[in-house]
Amino acid sequence: MVNPTIFRRRYTASSAPPGTLAPTEGALPPRLHAISYNGESMEEWTPEPDADLRSLQREGRRLWIDVQGLGDGTLVERLGRQFAMHPLVVADIVNVGQRPKVEDYGSQQFSVVRMVVLEDEAVRWEQVSVVMMRDLVLTFQERYGDCLDPLRERLRRGRKLVRESGSDYLAAMVVDGVVDGYFPVLEWYGESLESLETDVIEDPSRAVLARIYSMKRELMSMRRAVWPLRDALSSQLRDRSALIADDTVPYIRDTSDHVMQIVDVTETYRELAGSFVDVYLSSVGHRTNEVMRVLTVIGSIFIPLTFIAGIYGMNFDEIPELHWRFGYPAFWVVSVMVTALMLLLFRRLGWLGRGKKG
Amino acid sequence: MVNPTIFRRRYTASSAPPGTLAPTEGALPPRLHAISYNGESMEEWTPEPDADLRSLQREGRRLWIDVQGLGDGTLVERLGRQFAMHPLVVADIVNVGQRPKVEDYGSQQFSVVRMVVLEDEAVRWEQVSVVMMRDLVLTFQERYGDCLDPLRERLRRGRKLVRESGSDYLAAMVVDGVVDGYFPVLEWYGESLESLETDVIEDPSRAVLARIYSMKRELMSMRRAVWPLRDALSSQLRDRSALIADDTVPYIRDTSDHVMQIVDVTETYRELAGSFVDVYLSSVGHRTNEVMRVLTVIGSIFIPLTFIAGIYGMNFDEIPELHWRFGYPAFWVVSVMVTALMLLLFRRLGWLGRGKKG
Amino acid sequence: MVNPTIFRRRYTASSAPPGTLAPTEGALPPRLHAISYNGESMEEWTPEPDADLRSLQREGRRLWIDVQGLGDGTLVERLGRQFAMHPLVVADIVNVGQRPKVEDYGSQQFSVVRMVVLEDEAVRWEQVSVVMMRDLVLTFQERYGDCLDPLRERLRRGRKLVRESGSDYLAAMVVDGVVDGYFPVLEWYGESLESLETDVIEDPSRAVLARIYSMKRELMSMRRAVWPLRDALSSQLRDRSALIADDTVPYIRDTSDHVMQIVDVTETYRELAGSFVDVYLSSVGHRTNEVMRVLTVIGSIFIPLTFIAGIYGMNFDEIPELHWRFGYPAFWVVSVMVTALMLLLFRRLGWLGRGKKG
Amino acid sequence: MVNPTIFRRRYTASSAPPGTLAPTEGALPPRLHAISYNGESMEEWTPEPDADLRSLQREGRRLWIDVQGLGDGTLVERLGRQFAMHPLVVADIVNVGQRPKVEDYGSQQFSVVRMVVLEDEAVRWEQVSVVMMRDLVLTFQERYGDCLDPLRERLRRGRKLVRESGSDYLAAMVVDGVVDGYFPVLEWYGESLESLETDVIEDPSRAVLARIYSMKRELMSMRRAVWPLRDALSSQLRDRSALIADDTVPYIRDTSDHVMQIVDVTETYRELAGSFVDVYLSSVGHRTNEVMRVLTVIGSIFIPLTFIAGIYGMNFDEIPELHWRFGYPAFWVVSVMVTALMLLLFRRLGWLGRGKKG
Amino acid sequence: MVNPTIFRRRYTASSAPPGTLAPTEGALPPRLHAISYNGESMEEWTPEPDADLRSLQREGRRLWIDVQGLGDGTLVERLGRQFAMHPLVVADIVNVGQRPKVEDYGSQQFSVVRMVVLEDEAVRWEQVSVVMMRDLVLTFQERYGDCLDPLRERLRRGRKLVRESGSDYLAAMVVDGVVDGYFPVLEWYGESLESLETDVIEDPSRAVLARIYSMKRELMSMRRAVWPLRDALSSQLRDRSALIADDTVPYIRDTSDHVMQIVDVTETYRELAGSFVDVYLSSVGHRTNEVMRVLTVIGSIFIPLTFIAGIYGMNFDEIPELHWRFGYPAFWVVSVMVTALMLLLFRRLGWLGRGKKG
Repeated sequence: MVNPTIFRRRYTASSAPPGTLAPTEGALPPRLHAISYNGESMEEWTPEPDADLRSLQREGRRLWIDVQGLGDGTLVERLGRQFAMHPLVVADIVNVGQRPKVEDYGSQQFSVVRMVVLEDEAVRWEQVSVVMMRDLVLTFQERYGDCLDPLRERLRRGRKLVRESGSDYLAAMVVDGVVDGYFPVLEWYGESLESLETDVIEDPSRAVLARIYSMKRELMSMRRAVWPLRDALSSQLRDRSALIADDTVPYIRDTSDHVMQIVDVTETYRELAGSFVDVYLSSVGHRTNEVMRVLTVIGSIFIPLTFIAGIYGMNFDEIPELHWRFGYPAFWVVSVMVTALMLLLFRRLGWLGRGKKG
Repeated sequence: MVNPTIFRRRYTASSAPPGTLAPTEGALPPRLHAISYNGESMEEWTPEPDADLRSLQREGRRLWIDVQGLGDGTLVERLGRQFAMHPLVVADIVNVGQRPKVEDYGSQQFSVVRMVVLEDEAVRWEQVSVVMMRDLVLTFQERYGDCLDPLRERLRRGRKLVRESGSDYLAAMVVDGVVDGYFPVLEWYGESLESLETDVIEDPSRAVLARIYSMKRELMSMRRAVWPLRDALSSQLRDRSALIADDTVPYIRDTSDHVMQIVDVTETYRELAGSFVDVYLSSVGHRTNEVMRVLTVIGSIFIPLTFIAGIYGMNFDEIPELHWRFGYPAFWVVSVMVTALMLLLFRRLGWLGRGKKG
Repeated sequence: MVNPTIFRRRYTASSAPPGTLAPTEGALPPRLHAISYNGESMEEWTPEPDADLRSLQREGRRLWIDVQGLGDGTLVERLGRQFAMHPLVVADIVNVGQRPKVEDYGSQQFSVVRMVVLEDEAVRWEQVSVVMMRDLVLTFQERYGDCLDPLRERLRRGRKLVRESGSDYLAAMVVDGVVDGYFPVLEWYGESLESLETDVIEDPSRAVLARIYSMKRELMSMRRAVWPLRDALSSQLRDRSALIADDTVPYIRDTSDHVMQIVDVTETYRELAGSFVDVYLSSVGHRTNEVMRVLTVIGSIFIPLTFIAGIYGMNFDEIPELHWRFGYPAFWVVSVMVTALMLLLFRRLGWLGRGKKG
Repeated sequence: MVNPTIFRRRYTASSAPPGTLAPTEGALPPRLHAISYNGESMEEWTPEPDADLRSLQREGRRLWIDVQGLGDGTLVERLGRQFAMHPLVVADIVNVGQRPKVEDYGSQQFSVVRMVVLEDEAVRWEQVSVVMMRDLVLTFQERYGDCLDPLRERLRRGRKLVRESGSDYLAAMVVDGVVDGYFPVLEWYGESLESLETDVIEDPSRAVLARIYSMKRELMSMRRAVWPLRDALSSQLRDRSALIADDTVPYIRDTSDHVMQIVDVTETYRELAGSFVDVYLSSVGHRTNEVMRVLTVIGSIFIPLTFIAGIYGMNFDEIPELHWRFGYPAFWVVSVMVTALMLLLFRRLGWLGRGKKG
Repeated sequence: MVNPTIFRRRYTASSAPPGTLAPTEGALPPRLHAISYNGESMEEWTPEPDADLRSLQREGRRLWIDVQGLGDGTLVERLGRQFAMHPLVVADIVNVGQRPKVEDYGSQQFSVVRMVVLEDEAVRWEQVSVVMMRDLVLTFQERYGDCLDPLRERLRRGRKLVRESGSDYLAAMVVDGVVDGYFPVLEWYGESLESLETDVIEDPSRAVLARIYSMKRELMSMRRAVWPLRDALSSQLRDRSALIADDTVPYIRDTSDHVMQIVDVTETYRELAGSFVDVYLSSVGHRTNEVMRVLTVIGSIFIPLTFIAGIYGMNFDEIPELHWRFGYPAFWVVSVMVTALMLLLFRRLGWLGRGKKG
């Protein structure tokens, strides 16, 4: 039930002096993938990590180098040197766990987004760093595998728009692809909430509270991924970098729209999860009420009756009723009448039907 | 009780690459309707879906093409090509479930609003997309039937304002018509809340909680439709498109005012629904209290009496009271006195009247 | 307890096409009142509804026409035509229930405020529409009678400021007069809250919860009247209309200050009312606690005693205690000791004093 | 427990037409105090209320006239005329209970702040009005005595900064002095909260709830004094009056910093007081739990035992156990065993230790 | 459990007239440390408190003077005079407990940040004041020892960036170092919350509530340290001081990013702690429910049985059952049947399994 991404973030890397390159413990060894394309053709290969990647750049072609796995700090450092990245950019790539942001360094733009993957009923977050320069896009991911295959497929199929647009379009599409990856997760959250809703109303056990609470935490993670991105994208649109062409703007705005939509849904879901807590709390009180009602009904009937029985169990010398001819049947008549009276009263209070009155 | 528009949105369409035209499953086949008008005359007909709709445009006349049903993706795509719509606009029309927005593409303005229809005590939301160009308005709706008939009627009756104004006024009126459709729904919510209020105070059963909760969800849907629209309209007024004439501005401001009013009412209703939860919770606690009071009153009277009866049921050799002449009547006197004392105490605590003290 | 102004607003009027003049059902027939003044003199009369009101305007004199009762839609329409008011202004006057606002139409300024009247312990809201042009102020009210008599009195007494200032000052004073009408209502709310506070702490019955809840609703109405007005006035000060003289600005700012103060007080009251709910909820739990304590004290003493009595009521052949000489007195000694012990325990737990511990 | 400054504000004065001078009922007769100073010398005296105060102004000297007690409306009106104050300024001085604000009237600046005084464990608020012109500061207070003596002392001691700066610095120092008066009150609130915290955890009686609630109200008053002042000071810094010298700006910013700090502390305290309500509510539930536990433990042990005793009190002809040799001791063995079993069960449930488990 | 930094701040110093230098009671005697460096070399020594520190400045070298312990007010005053600091800056340095801020005084920039140190499972806050001028940085700390050793180490190791950049970079690095000190504390909070989460779900004792509450207070302190800093840094970036070089901007932005991240995490933690209160409250209700269930089950079984036993303990002359041959066994059969029936009912209600149903 514990979502470790909320508690066990490794802040230690962040607290190092700026510019430090300490790859996080347990980081994977890097795998590289390069795509070079223009309107006419497109090539794809797997460069060696120690190759001079700058040499891959060709005039008039766009290059996308994708690095998956950040276990080798020197690789990122070397790339940083080769492509003249700002030391803080290099540090932010390696020290994962950054806040989503878009930073403009003049000749390069640096974006951080959080990618989400839904695996085996569990949600996994990782940082994707995107460095965009003229005709070059570098992406860095924490783990192998991502949700950018549709984008690669579009490049392979030679779709005109993607092949002829500049690196700014490609970078925007990478962010868009990551954002699109949020939708299936949201949908999964929606389904979970829907089943949670049925359970909280029909069978509000303690496990349901734990699930509500766990859902709230999932949604906090989602919120922490999208709120900063929303701000970053709208400030990117407001103060547009010189690297971004006019034609790319609608696409960034489109991504921004999707982020807004995710923010809306996330907030709605959070509110729903909050309502479930109210329903749960009221059901606990309700259940206590039901338990008490049973005790009260039974106690109110039998405690007075036991008293009556007690009376005639007394050993006073002179209890006239004991010697009446119909004394014992009369006792039964009285008992039945008391019971009937009580039941009538409880029926009028609505305490006899289960669930009918609250 | 489950409102599926909150949980079961089809995000899959949204997560496709931008520009994709995958009509949502279950979408209806398109029905077209065209109105061509100017100050003097007005024509109305039903074009074939495969006609060249561009040829319907006439110099000096305004054209309104309304498409109901988005089941044929190629139609929207063809319209997009014929009228040079941006690929993202085409995609947003087909991939329904967009956030309300107004986007300015220079020579065309694209608006998305959410239309609400109240049918058989249930609220149904759908997306209305409005593309406005010079002398042309295209509207796209998910289902057949809408709340724009009053607008069509005004066109037919030849009202001067609507017939002589440009397409910007017509587009503004479409949005205004959709917004006006919110009022009957709000009114229906108001009536539901009013009856809910009576019930939560007088008969707070579990079904009432479910209704409160369901109302909260309805209001969330409403809020998600109006909040973004509020922002979209005020930013439309702030950065006015060149397509919008000065005379149209007060009408957009009027729509904006209505949206603000709906936002106000929605928020008030949400707060009321929230108060109902408090009332409900307190009533659950209250009811437990009532149940307990009955048990306590009966128990406090009869448990001591039973003890007294028990005493004189004991078989000690020597219990002097048993042989007193008025032992048994004395027992009754004591019993009645204990009962009277207890009742007096409970009356003073206010536990005997129902509902009087809390 | 139900405040109908929250639920039963007639939205139908609002949902008509813009410019429609459908007077609300039950609206009163109009009564007119005109004041014409300048620095030297002032006249006052009651024009016929079908007179040509434009002819009342005189060069160098200010004219204030007050219409009370909006039952005659044609009157407002005719006034609209005579004084060249925008169709939307005319519609907003007739379709009462508008949001407070200030709109600048160049040669005229249109304001909507909500007037509150405290009558027989009940609060009544109505819409006041103010149309201000050069040397002319038109006011429209829903019902007869208002809180503007002090302003009329000032005009009659020939106070220099009010008689020599332009129509902009008069319009500002109308709004100011309406806002001043909020203070007695706030004061009444304050007194209600004060008595509510005493009751919720000393006698938290169910009726108190209903009163808290009703107060919350009253404050919602107040808030919906002042929040939009606050925004309207500050935007009026920011983008000042050409009709408003420099000397009038401090007076509008003064009104704005009062509105801010009302907003502050309203928010404080809302928060107080919210606190009362907490106090109420805790008192329900508290009361249950008290009830339980009585049952527990009595049960804990007498249930064990009854068991002891039960033992010596058994019919075993051989129960030695029954034949002891002081068996019966010993039983009493044990019973008293058990009781004393229990009472001591409960005293230490603080369960015997009422209200002392919780 | 009732803080009358929240409920019983006299709004009647505010609802008079602007410019009205109706001194509040119970206002004190005015006492005047004047200080005239420059870099070299400083004089101090008590002018008569009916003197012509304008004549006290000397070229090259700053004059500070302090009026304590606003019982004489004509005095303020006369001062208003003598120093050409705006009618609204005069009205705001007399009609105390204004919102804190800073208003720029070109040749004069008018500030309203709320002064707090801690007297005999009670907090008293009053309005301080500051009118600042070139070389002149007028201050108006509701009651005698204030927290500005340190400022007067600094003037008397001839501190260079205060003696050589202009009236803008003096006015800023008056506001600063009033703001500094908030800190001891905050400190007192802090101590109250600290003792409240101990009590709410260790002894959550009903009186504690009343104290929490009373503290919340005190903090509301504080908030209503500082929030508007925060806005007023920052807008004063943004749109600086021509009367304020560059050198005075850091001092206003310093005051503004203090106000921000007070806002922070007030909000933190409000949140703490809110947490106390949660702790209190949980403790009420907890206490009920404790009470129930006692009843359940005693009932669960003795109710079954009483049944067993009841069995052998029956008068069936043939109950073999009654005639067993060790029947009665066996009854005791069974009773002790049942008791031991129950106690074991309750110990495992953790219901026997008080406070240990919950 | 009481966090004294929230309640026992010494406001007295703050309430003194601006410019007062009253060192807080219990402040430590100052210890000085100076570092002088440029691209080539770096010196480090411990100046005497009464030395003329101005003489340490050398052309072309940066000087960093660090003062730890503010017990000697005259030292700070003397430094203020030597380096022409504004009197308010000097006052803010001595009167610790200021709000985090960045102030631009033209030729010098004054920053206040709050440093946090985690010592023996307790968090300790102190004020760090940073005065930055051309080639000079002065830092003032409340206590000995800080989290700036990594920065000093970087200076000693001659890292090019830090040695060749100006004093603006050094000042930014001091703030960055202080901010980096928040991360380990956040991590510790995260761990505490994680263990709290387990406890609140599995063993929600009263001590857990106290820990939740204490955590909320810790997070309030953190928030009060970071929120103002966030605003201060972003306004520093917006209105950049002339002292700050272009190259330093990305580093300030980096610090600002970290602060944003801390704000995010703090808010998430606060929300989590808030959720824990809900879980705790529901568990108290739940526990009462469990207790009641035991009483109800036992009472519902044995109270009716006791009544039956009571019947046959009565002494009526004629109770036929008593003389039946199998009367006594029949009584047992009935008793077992009643018990079985009741258990069946309770099993169906789900009240017999512990924790299974709620």
